[in-house]
Amino acid sequence: MNELRIIPLPSVAMVHEGDDLVSMLLDAVTAHDASLEHHDLLIVTSKVVSKSEGQVVSFDGTEGQKVKLIEQESRRILRRRGPMRITETHHGFVNANAGIDLSNTDDGTAVLLPKDPDRSARRIRGEVQRRSGVDVAVIVTDTFGRVWRQGVTDVAIGLAGLKPILDLRGTSDAMGRVLEVTEVCVADEIAGAANLVLGKAEGTPFAIVRGLDESYFGEGSVKEGIIRTANEDLFR
Amino acid sequence: MNELRIIPLPSVAMVHEGDDLVSMLLDAVTAHDASLEHHDLLIVTSKVVSKSEGQVVSFDGTEGQKVKLIEQESRRILRRRGPMRITETHHGFVNANAGIDLSNTDDGTAVLLPKDPDRSARRIRGEVQRRSGVDVAVIVTDTFGRVWRQGVTDVAIGLAGLKPILDLRGTSDAMGRVLEVTEVCVADEIAGAANLVLGKAEGTPFAIVRGLDESYFGEGSVKEGIIRTANEDLFR
Repeated sequence: MNELRIIPLPSVAMVHEGDDLVSMLLDAVTAHDASLEHHDLLIVTSKVVSKSEGQVVSFDGTEGQKVKLIEQESRRILRRRGPMRITETHHGFVNANAGIDLSNTDDGTAVLLPKDPDRSARRIRGEVQRRSGVDVAVIVTDTFGRVWRQGVTDVAIGLAGLKPILDLRGTSDAMGRVLEVTEVCVADEIAGAANLVLGKAEGTPFAIVRGLDESYFGEGSVKEGIIRTANEDLFR
Repeated sequence: MNELRIIPLPSVAMVHEGDDLVSMLLDAVTAHDASLEHHDLLIVTSKVVSKSEGQVVSFDGTEGQKVKLIEQESRRILRRRGPMRITETHHGFVNANAGIDLSNTDDGTAVLLPKDPDRSARRIRGEVQRRSGVDVAVIVTDTFGRVWRQGVTDVAIGLAGLKPILDLRGTSDAMGRVLEVTEVCVADEIAGAANLVLGKAEGTPFAIVRGLDESYFGEGSVKEGIIRTANEDLFR
């Protein structure tokens, strides 16, 4: 394996509905004195995707409306604690409060998750290729909690040009034996890695991940590859 | 935030009980024509830690003994599916099969998790500082599944010299509002990032993570900082 580089791309632009996100992304690459390379992976945080797609609703700040919004964005509520909900969203994600973002939004608004983050990633990938001529992969990231461990981490909610799961089934280990644990969710590992350089409050919505092994690239989606359906898991 | 680099450190050495793991690690740094820098973070996979600490037991390959080993290493079994168990280990980790590794071990053996991975990390950190004079942080990693998402990712099971959780509570976002989701488990994001360069079957037990923000360094442990106790979670 090669060395991996994770390059943050700050952007001063505030994003609004209809804005050209790919243009902002390519401007951020240029401002960083960088250029895209074959097999770069681009990280785009969900908030700027949602804002550019108009996934913004008015929000009066009350607990009542918060719970109403959460329930609208969910197909199932798994747990309740005060105003907090563990939700299964219409996409099938299990997260807190249906992933609705009440921070860093324009006053009196809340930001919902993108409607179809895999489609958003495919669109960004296609536009980057069209304008720059470079074949990249794209991950749209969001911040999720975990059941058994404290703290949140960034995960992939949409992707394009990448195999979400690296399937090592049938490969052998250094001793020639077939490996047991073998399906690695590289998409989530990449999303978490990128979060280390984004900084929560600093206006860095993009990053380049450079040096990923060739075997990671291919076709796939978060929806088909990563979401575990209710009848597959042991805790729903 | 700065650019992050993740540098794999292959090692040809097979590890046995009593082996000097820090010597192997420093040899791997030298073999890579690298040298350690202040605020580098060193990744050490749990398997080589366990082997050097003698956490290896004989294993006849039968399902019966597998289940017996898993139960010995657990304080609680949360779910059963065939011979697979979702366990709460004596450390408090929730994982599959108590983290026992049946692949890549010498024939007829199984590798248990280190008894106290935070202590292992502190010992490695202390020895690296003593021999190289460089102040580094250390994470011991292992591979865990997730409840709601397919595929496994690497997480931190022990650490030293790092704050496991980056606490952003009380800080403001780009619009001056106080952030909502604010406790980021950087230790797990770093562990997952490193796994992207390790490669499952290639004998790369170490990596250097270089360029982490200064604010990430400090004191902490996985045990105190990341493990969520049974009365804190909503799904046990």
